[in-house]
Amino acid sequence: MDDHITPRRVVILGGGFAGLFAVRALRNAPVAVTVVDRCAHHLFQPLLYQCASGILSSGQIAQPLRAVLRRHGNVRCLLATATDVDVTERIVRAERPDGGKLALPYDDLIVGVGVKQSYFGHDEFAQHAPGMKTLEDALGVRRKLYRAFEMAEAAEDPQERAAWLTFALVGAGPTGVELAGQIREIASHTLDREFTSIDPSQARVLLFDGADAVLAAFGPVLARRAARTLHSLGVEIRLGSIATGVDERGLTVRRHDGSTERFEARTVLWTAGVEAPPLATALARATGAEQDRAGRIMVEPDLTIAGHPEIRVVGDLMSLNKLPGLAEVAMQSGAYAGRRIRHAVEGRTRRPRPFRYLDLGSAAYISRGRAVVKMGRFHASGVPGWLIWLFIHIVFLTGFRSRLGALISWAVVFASGSRRERAFTSPRSQTAEADAASLSGPPADPTVTRHDPPRPA
Amino acid sequence: MDDHITPRRVVILGGGFAGLFAVRALRNAPVAVTVVDRCAHHLFQPLLYQCASGILSSGQIAQPLRAVLRRHGNVRCLLATATDVDVTERIVRAERPDGGKLALPYDDLIVGVGVKQSYFGHDEFAQHAPGMKTLEDALGVRRKLYRAFEMAEAAEDPQERAAWLTFALVGAGPTGVELAGQIREIASHTLDREFTSIDPSQARVLLFDGADAVLAAFGPVLARRAARTLHSLGVEIRLGSIATGVDERGLTVRRHDGSTERFEARTVLWTAGVEAPPLATALARATGAEQDRAGRIMVEPDLTIAGHPEIRVVGDLMSLNKLPGLAEVAMQSGAYAGRRIRHAVEGRTRRPRPFRYLDLGSAAYISRGRAVVKMGRFHASGVPGWLIWLFIHIVFLTGFRSRLGALISWAVVFASGSRRERAFTSPRSQTAEADAASLSGPPADPTVTRHDPPRPA
Repeated sequence: MDDHITPRRVVILGGGFAGLFAVRALRNAPVAVTVVDRCAHHLFQPLLYQCASGILSSGQIAQPLRAVLRRHGNVRCLLATATDVDVTERIVRAERPDGGKLALPYDDLIVGVGVKQSYFGHDEFAQHAPGMKTLEDALGVRRKLYRAFEMAEAAEDPQERAAWLTFALVGAGPTGVELAGQIREIASHTLDREFTSIDPSQARVLLFDGADAVLAAFGPVLARRAARTLHSLGVEIRLGSIATGVDERGLTVRRHDGSTERFEARTVLWTAGVEAPPLATALARATGAEQDRAGRIMVEPDLTIAGHPEIRVVGDLMSLNKLPGLAEVAMQSGAYAGRRIRHAVEGRTRRPRPFRYLDLGSAAYISRGRAVVKMGRFHASGVPGWLIWLFIHIVFLTGFRSRLGALISWAVVFASGSRRERAFTSPRSQTAEADAASLSGPPADPTVTRHDPPRPA
Repeated sequence: MDDHITPRRVVILGGGFAGLFAVRALRNAPVAVTVVDRCAHHLFQPLLYQCASGILSSGQIAQPLRAVLRRHGNVRCLLATATDVDVTERIVRAERPDGGKLALPYDDLIVGVGVKQSYFGHDEFAQHAPGMKTLEDALGVRRKLYRAFEMAEAAEDPQERAAWLTFALVGAGPTGVELAGQIREIASHTLDREFTSIDPSQARVLLFDGADAVLAAFGPVLARRAARTLHSLGVEIRLGSIATGVDERGLTVRRHDGSTERFEARTVLWTAGVEAPPLATALARATGAEQDRAGRIMVEPDLTIAGHPEIRVVGDLMSLNKLPGLAEVAMQSGAYAGRRIRHAVEGRTRRPRPFRYLDLGSAAYISRGRAVVKMGRFHASGVPGWLIWLFIHIVFLTGFRSRLGALISWAVVFASGSRRERAFTSPRSQTAEADAASLSGPPADPTVTRHDPPRPA
């Protein structure tokens, strides 16, 4: 209709916590919002490890973005990967899954595409040691975990069996700690009494980190308590150790004193560092923005890029005052960016305040009944920590249909150790043939093993 | 212990309904059972389409085989693909996922590995038109379905958009009918109000079959009622039509009168025929057993292979009296085979009765509140049919933890059309880069599309 003024066009790259909270801050504002994400879902990343460990289903942690945003009349969602930004013409270039190109003009741009796993220059590790950033990652880790026990059961050689029952995690931040706890719980509670040739509870879980503490970001008191809890679960913590080699059969680490050690571990998981995706470099080049060591974009106190008041960077990709890559930072920065645009559209003239992160605390779940929580100077661990963890996650799951489902799943795993979402698929396959073909990777043990069945009970 | 007599070794190939019921029939018998399956889960195949359509999670239809069998003390489960049978030495040869070889000696062998999708000599169709036999298939179909709507939303060319909104199903048996109904329900109820550029309810669903009726196996009365229900849902039924070509952009069909027609449909699903897997040919060659046209093994009235009283074939792979490939036939034949071995071990000398299938009826769900049910001469359709369908499936899900979960999911989708398990992954990918690389297939529309965002509501 010609008598309409074209509304201000806001393009939001990324439908994670940052993007979602930006959209919410723009609710009912007279703007036209386009949300671009390479996934069709919004991922509840803090619970990704519970999908990997078989507690939660993919649908419980990944909701369709457009279903979450269905009541936002000014929003359009597009499934595409942003590849570049033309800051002169103010156009985002993106690619659809089938290779089709899109050009998205904007008046305001919010970039919240997050970060990806970093292998610190060793991208060749990725094929053997998957990270934990996407739903694909979580389902891949689930397959690796549960298949390792199956492989151990079918192995005859004791060394091979031991290697299948050894799990190595590189990086003792929250994800590494949470996964380490989960694997020991799976081994000793979930798989209890299911195997005949192996004792799953003998599974070794090795947790490596280059630093001198687990959960270093939680401070020394909680770090010590977390280490104690992990130790009592049977997790072997190896600090001051950097992974220098990873292959399909295990990993090699180097210690601070220069000595190296080799571990035969058929399952190696990477929970170490993060780095910015290629779009960040493209954006930095186009705008002249600086990037920090991990490639994150340095922003002004109002989250804009210097010289580009129309471009805001939010969430994990934003580099500002060394703020950590937490869901809470993403939510608050996304909401701030959205609010700033709404205020501008509403014609507010008061000079806006810079972004200020309100630290609501952080929490890491270690095992059932045990978590560590840090809220400013307040600390909690053990059962109190776990109760706070539970409360926080139920509150944040609000608005998701999955809240009840997650509560039921948590109750079941807490009471019985049983995990309802253990099903895994074969890598790349559709038919029996493809299956056989794709599964016959490098023959680890070409000798024929004769299996005499167990004696009856 | 030397004073033990080595127990009779029973090897069961396949952990589907047939294998599971064979194991159950052998419960507490003094035998040593080994169950071999290429998947670690038992799949509740009749509800596979509900996993594909986003109602149920993978864990709700796929339970770990060893968890299901944990209380069977005489059973060992192995994750491996049986590749051949040495009937002279009585050894099954199998391959582990890492390529390691296994040799499994048996005294009794029960073969229940099922059948796979058949493309009637056109295996090249498979890459464009996935079947519906495995969990991988279901998750692949889920991705195809929901991504098609996303692609339509991002498409600018009306013809391309229409092609993305056209879904073709080849084969109007229960799976084809159920999926056709699901897609129309997704289009008109689930995705309602989520899109801005397209109207999902305009999605065309074409159901092709070479025969002259849908659900031909249910008889003319129910076939007519099913066709009427499908028609009222908006499914376009094209009978007497055989697919002669399938590619990434659509399919070509030939009618009985020899004329051909081309349909632009970006989503083609194959729900037509089945054929025996390679193991069946290996087994037939080794035993001299005959195979029917689909490659299924012809068995004696006691389900053994002629001349091999120690080998029984059960479930979908068994060819006997033209029994259909139904879960109920698999359960009964598996249980019969297990019972026969138990009786032999127990030393019963009475000449056993041949296998007799007791037809408990079959049911197909068409849409919410509508199903067709056939039990001998008893027929039901519409709401009564749906209530019977619901009752049967709840009964058969007994023993699965998922029963409550499935009931909740069905209640939600019935009441609101909302599907909780819509999350899909990208094909083969772990990182953002891999994603971009693997997704950029053949460029369907290389022109750059300029997207002006929608006007605010």
